[in-house]
Amino acid sequence: MSLLRTRPVATAAMIATFDDEATIAAALAFETALAAAQAAVGVIPAEAAAAIAAAASALRLDPAALAERAALAGTLAIPLVATLRAQLDGEAATALHRGATSQDVADSALMMQVRRAGTLLLVDTDRVTTALAPLAHAHAATPAIGRTLLQDAQPIGFGLRLAQWHAGIAAAAARLSREVAAKAALQWGGAAGSRPDQAGQADAVAARLAAALGLAEAPPWHARREGVAGIAAALGILIGALGKMARDLALLAQNGVGEAREPAVAGRGGSSAMAHKRNPTGCQIALSAATRAPGLVAGILAALPAEEERGLGGWQAEGPMLVDLFLLASGAAEAMAGVAEGLEIDGDAIARNLAAAGQGTGIGDSVALVDALLDIGKD
Amino acid sequence: MSLLRTRPVATAAMIATFDDEATIAAALAFETALAAAQAAVGVIPAEAAAAIAAAASALRLDPAALAERAALAGTLAIPLVATLRAQLDGEAATALHRGATSQDVADSALMMQVRRAGTLLLVDTDRVTTALAPLAHAHAATPAIGRTLLQDAQPIGFGLRLAQWHAGIAAAAARLSREVAAKAALQWGGAAGSRPDQAGQADAVAARLAAALGLAEAPPWHARREGVAGIAAALGILIGALGKMARDLALLAQNGVGEAREPAVAGRGGSSAMAHKRNPTGCQIALSAATRAPGLVAGILAALPAEEERGLGGWQAEGPMLVDLFLLASGAAEAMAGVAEGLEIDGDAIARNLAAAGQGTGIGDSVALVDALLDIGKD
Amino acid sequence: MSLLRTRPVATAAMIATFDDEATIAAALAFETALAAAQAAVGVIPAEAAAAIAAAASALRLDPAALAERAALAGTLAIPLVATLRAQLDGEAATALHRGATSQDVADSALMMQVRRAGTLLLVDTDRVTTALAPLAHAHAATPAIGRTLLQDAQPIGFGLRLAQWHAGIAAAAARLSREVAAKAALQWGGAAGSRPDQAGQADAVAARLAAALGLAEAPPWHARREGVAGIAAALGILIGALGKMARDLALLAQNGVGEAREPAVAGRGGSSAMAHKRNPTGCQIALSAATRAPGLVAGILAALPAEEERGLGGWQAEGPMLVDLFLLASGAAEAMAGVAEGLEIDGDAIARNLAAAGQGTGIGDSVALVDALLDIGKD
Amino acid sequence: MSLLRTRPVATAAMIATFDDEATIAAALAFETALAAAQAAVGVIPAEAAAAIAAAASALRLDPAALAERAALAGTLAIPLVATLRAQLDGEAATALHRGATSQDVADSALMMQVRRAGTLLLVDTDRVTTALAPLAHAHAATPAIGRTLLQDAQPIGFGLRLAQWHAGIAAAAARLSREVAAKAALQWGGAAGSRPDQAGQADAVAARLAAALGLAEAPPWHARREGVAGIAAALGILIGALGKMARDLALLAQNGVGEAREPAVAGRGGSSAMAHKRNPTGCQIALSAATRAPGLVAGILAALPAEEERGLGGWQAEGPMLVDLFLLASGAAEAMAGVAEGLEIDGDAIARNLAAAGQGTGIGDSVALVDALLDIGKD
Repeated sequence: MSLLRTRPVATAAMIATFDDEATIAAALAFETALAAAQAAVGVIPAEAAAAIAAAASALRLDPAALAERAALAGTLAIPLVATLRAQLDGEAATALHRGATSQDVADSALMMQVRRAGTLLLVDTDRVTTALAPLAHAHAATPAIGRTLLQDAQPIGFGLRLAQWHAGIAAAAARLSREVAAKAALQWGGAAGSRPDQAGQADAVAARLAAALGLAEAPPWHARREGVAGIAAALGILIGALGKMARDLALLAQNGVGEAREPAVAGRGGSSAMAHKRNPTGCQIALSAATRAPGLVAGILAALPAEEERGLGGWQAEGPMLVDLFLLASGAAEAMAGVAEGLEIDGDAIARNLAAAGQGTGIGDSVALVDALLDIGKD
Repeated sequence: MSLLRTRPVATAAMIATFDDEATIAAALAFETALAAAQAAVGVIPAEAAAAIAAAASALRLDPAALAERAALAGTLAIPLVATLRAQLDGEAATALHRGATSQDVADSALMMQVRRAGTLLLVDTDRVTTALAPLAHAHAATPAIGRTLLQDAQPIGFGLRLAQWHAGIAAAAARLSREVAAKAALQWGGAAGSRPDQAGQADAVAARLAAALGLAEAPPWHARREGVAGIAAALGILIGALGKMARDLALLAQNGVGEAREPAVAGRGGSSAMAHKRNPTGCQIALSAATRAPGLVAGILAALPAEEERGLGGWQAEGPMLVDLFLLASGAAEAMAGVAEGLEIDGDAIARNLAAAGQGTGIGDSVALVDALLDIGKD
Repeated sequence: MSLLRTRPVATAAMIATFDDEATIAAALAFETALAAAQAAVGVIPAEAAAAIAAAASALRLDPAALAERAALAGTLAIPLVATLRAQLDGEAATALHRGATSQDVADSALMMQVRRAGTLLLVDTDRVTTALAPLAHAHAATPAIGRTLLQDAQPIGFGLRLAQWHAGIAAAAARLSREVAAKAALQWGGAAGSRPDQAGQADAVAARLAAALGLAEAPPWHARREGVAGIAAALGILIGALGKMARDLALLAQNGVGEAREPAVAGRGGSSAMAHKRNPTGCQIALSAATRAPGLVAGILAALPAEEERGLGGWQAEGPMLVDLFLLASGAAEAMAGVAEGLEIDGDAIARNLAAAGQGTGIGDSVALVDALLDIGKD
Repeated sequence: MSLLRTRPVATAAMIATFDDEATIAAALAFETALAAAQAAVGVIPAEAAAAIAAAASALRLDPAALAERAALAGTLAIPLVATLRAQLDGEAATALHRGATSQDVADSALMMQVRRAGTLLLVDTDRVTTALAPLAHAHAATPAIGRTLLQDAQPIGFGLRLAQWHAGIAAAAARLSREVAAKAALQWGGAAGSRPDQAGQADAVAARLAAALGLAEAPPWHARREGVAGIAAALGILIGALGKMARDLALLAQNGVGEAREPAVAGRGGSSAMAHKRNPTGCQIALSAATRAPGLVAGILAALPAEEERGLGGWQAEGPMLVDLFLLASGAAEAMAGVAEGLEIDGDAIARNLAAAGQGTGIGDSVALVDALLDIGKD
């Protein structure tokens, strides 16, 4: 366990969203809501559901001890359900976890966390785009040398560059929002995905359970993981879009270029060896995330051909990778939000570099393109 | 160049969609349509556009020679435009490729091919789902042992398994369709993305150009590649969904299981060493594609942080990877289409395995779940 | 931070090897050893080195607080060195961290942990091969049906299968051992890799520093990461070799096959829904690791083209990925060690399946091949 | 099939090494050498071996037609062996492909190509290091500003930068050479890996066969693919090391930096839109390869957990990925060889940038480090 490796690349809020306390709470919420839904339609007695809710609410679990037992059992739900059941009398003990399997708990809890994480993340991507839009407008008509293949090319409006960052991030955020809304869905199917033992009320239980947990309703997807893959891919794309902004800014901040720069923040971007340096530390976070994200998405895609009704090794690998993607995205988005909000633009350097390139000052259709780009991702 | 490595994993039609002739034709179509659009709004003379169209139509290029020149130049458009220009007189020669850059040609041509490829692919995924749906219904209530973590678990309706395949593939096909429709867009921005030299008519030219090429309209996206990444991810997910079906069927076809099997096809699935064997060759194609696809998607995601107005190395790497994803998807979809259309289901084996498992015959809510699953991906 | 996501996939010992306390200790050991080496050759006063050693030894750092400061600074070394320096008087304060940069601390500390991790890991891979070898010999001549493309094929000696697992794991362990020995090297170059401010004694300091830290000596490799990539790739291959054994065993343990099985362990492999089930939980750990590892290796390879003297985002991304590879490898190796040591082999099932296949009992050269395979990885 | 996508990223010689003619020739060489080896030790009649050799030598196969049949059969060897057998009389027809399986042909042919490809590749990496070494020496003591996190840092000897490129490439080439020598091995095991039907002479046949094909001897490795993974990883690392040099050079060649530049080559690096530009086209090739390679390595690692005696989908996916890695490496190595041999270094720009940085001229231990770095990879 390493805060030293995690905190520098993720926000504290996102770390908390996926920490052990949050995971345990979500798992217990699943068991409680399942019992409540089953009681509401008569699958289990109302008293049993009430007892389960009370016991779950009173339960105090030590994450470290639970992790040891989960490591042995191969899944968190086994020790968690066993501990909870030990607090219950006969009828409630029998009613607990009825028609559910470990993966139901794991996947539904994860999706509850994913919804919260998605909301958190979009706050920071909104900060980025909100800060970039006026800058893009303000500099839309400022001629700057455009660069292609890392060589001076032709002039563009400086704001066109910022509007491109905006468009990439806004489109990626919109895709993520869409995927989370549609695919962060209830997982509930029981041992082999048939929703057994529900006295003909499986549909009604599912509807209530999904509503209670704030998840989309869906048939079981134990071994049909395209939704998870869709969310993961959207995260990978978002991280890449943030990385694009970071790459550009780091290049613009080079000593021989100097057109834009991260804001100076006390304690940030220093060097242990060189007092004079101001490192693009925000860009570092986003670029580091963009280096790690593609392999995580690939891992989740590789798990798609899951075996039979519930697979072996694939979905168990997914959770940590999906969480890592959210963690990395949070760090990258917050870093770029801070950078966008305090972005330093050096008009003199822009003019100097433009003159040195000797390609004139014609910026073509840049101003209109800025408008068009700032509209992307809005619908 | 290897047909021996490509043809076994891709359909002939998909190979043709991306072959050199198709690429050259698309590139020439771009130049012709650009000139036509510019002439229509008065940016270049109508005669120049007509001359360009005539010359492009008459041009015969040797792919091998062109490839050598492209290898030297670093891009296809340079030798292609130079060759075409050599056929033109002064005014038309000057008008050709006006306000365009190599990457405009490369990306727009690729997106034209992507649209055709997407349409081709969805024909085969439709074949899969069309064949699976009635089978899922027919076997919805047939008790079969469900398997989890590769062990016998609880009974399910056999059709539930088929309906899960259907849902995964239908949802993935819907995502791909959506991404291609939205993101296979015109690329046209000129040297640095500002659409220079259009006499104030850039917008009008872009609209006509996109319409002529059958592409979505969009501001230039030279270094903003989230659309390409979205299409690539959708392909990766589709391949994974096909791979899921293949994984299951290969497991069901094992000698100790025998519940379902690929259709017997003359010349297919034999063994060079064992005459008695019937290999799941269709599944092999899909599983092989599912092994290769995640890394290709990762490569495209890794290219997202492109440098400045047009990057170095990233987008140049994307094209071949995106093409490989379409090739692999085509092979997998066609293979699974053939498999689904001729799927052999062995009711005796299903019953025998169910009895051996000793878990009864209760299939829970399987029948209703089949209906729900078959609805996925329809909207 | 999640023990619930980490402990089930990694050993407690490996988690401890890379936890925050271990990281801080390694970083302080670097500073202490650097000062000692510099004092020994006269670059700094002996008193300063002694003061640094004393202060480092007395320092108590709160990982959570340090992580917050590292997140702000962009690197662990800045707050760590600043805190240590605050404990020192003028001369020692000046002498501390002389000619070193943050990345020197981060990389050298990581490599110290890598050496310990490699040693830990090889203990468990040795357990696997030590347990498999006699089993492979014992069953070398037992005819069993061989299976190819998931279909019955021709007979083999059952021990040939075990010997193949052995050979794959032994060869992968040998590669890892070789890479760690050669490439887990001292990182020390100072701000830009030139080893400045060493009064002509840079070589001597480096030799003493490497020896003190138990690392191979090497010129600075801040932006030349092929050694890290070599270690990462070796881990990816080892995890794959363990995954191969797991894949096979999970297939052999299927209800319709039953030739081999994980040992029964109290509390392991149960099901929250099905009391009768015995899940291949050890195989799950190894297969899950094998699903995650390739993307981590890809991420490390993607970081190779680091910028200039010390890159932006690449090497910062490497550390967490390399640590994840060691964590996953530890869980997979320990799981397969336990499995190998208690492997249940069912001779009746082997014979029954062989007879059902109807391919006779000739096992070719299996016995000699077992011997040859068990020799692999020994040199 | 696309030369336009392949030739710009690979050398003509490497393309030829893996083209269909070469693959067919290698496959026929396997069949011929197998028969010869078996005849030499009395497993088949000498006349049969002679007839096989004659028929193989006379056989003319159309790659396109063969590819269609391979696509149907699921493997190249089935139609190839069938066609060859049709040319033979009874005894020779029976003797052909004795105790061999399709995968033996595919893997052994691939490894023969791998050996040739490795030799080709190392010629170009040697060109790179041979060109870099004297430059590194010549500029070892030239003060230049070192750059870290894309910011000016402290001075280094300019040659230190070149020596780092050298060391990274030399070490990676040495690893590749070692892996190919050890792991490009004979594949021969027959249907299920037991080397059946060899009249007790399997070992002797294997030894002769390996020698005849120029491959290392090894027990069958049908489903034990760590050797392939080792070669693939070594290629991925080499491509990354070439990409590192390319990344640096592209940054050094920026207009605001200008310290070094690719040689001017007629027809190379132009722009279809801007006559004044000189693009770093060689760097583009290497960086593009470095973008694609990690995902290919990941795909090969993902295939490691192959099923049972010969897997389904995994090894069939490997061949094309391994070939792509060699193709990409060839293009990157040749590009960097040309770049290194004509590298333009601008001493004035180096001095100007150094002065602008204002960090003095002390280059620490750079000169000695250059020597040490140039020694890496030699043993």
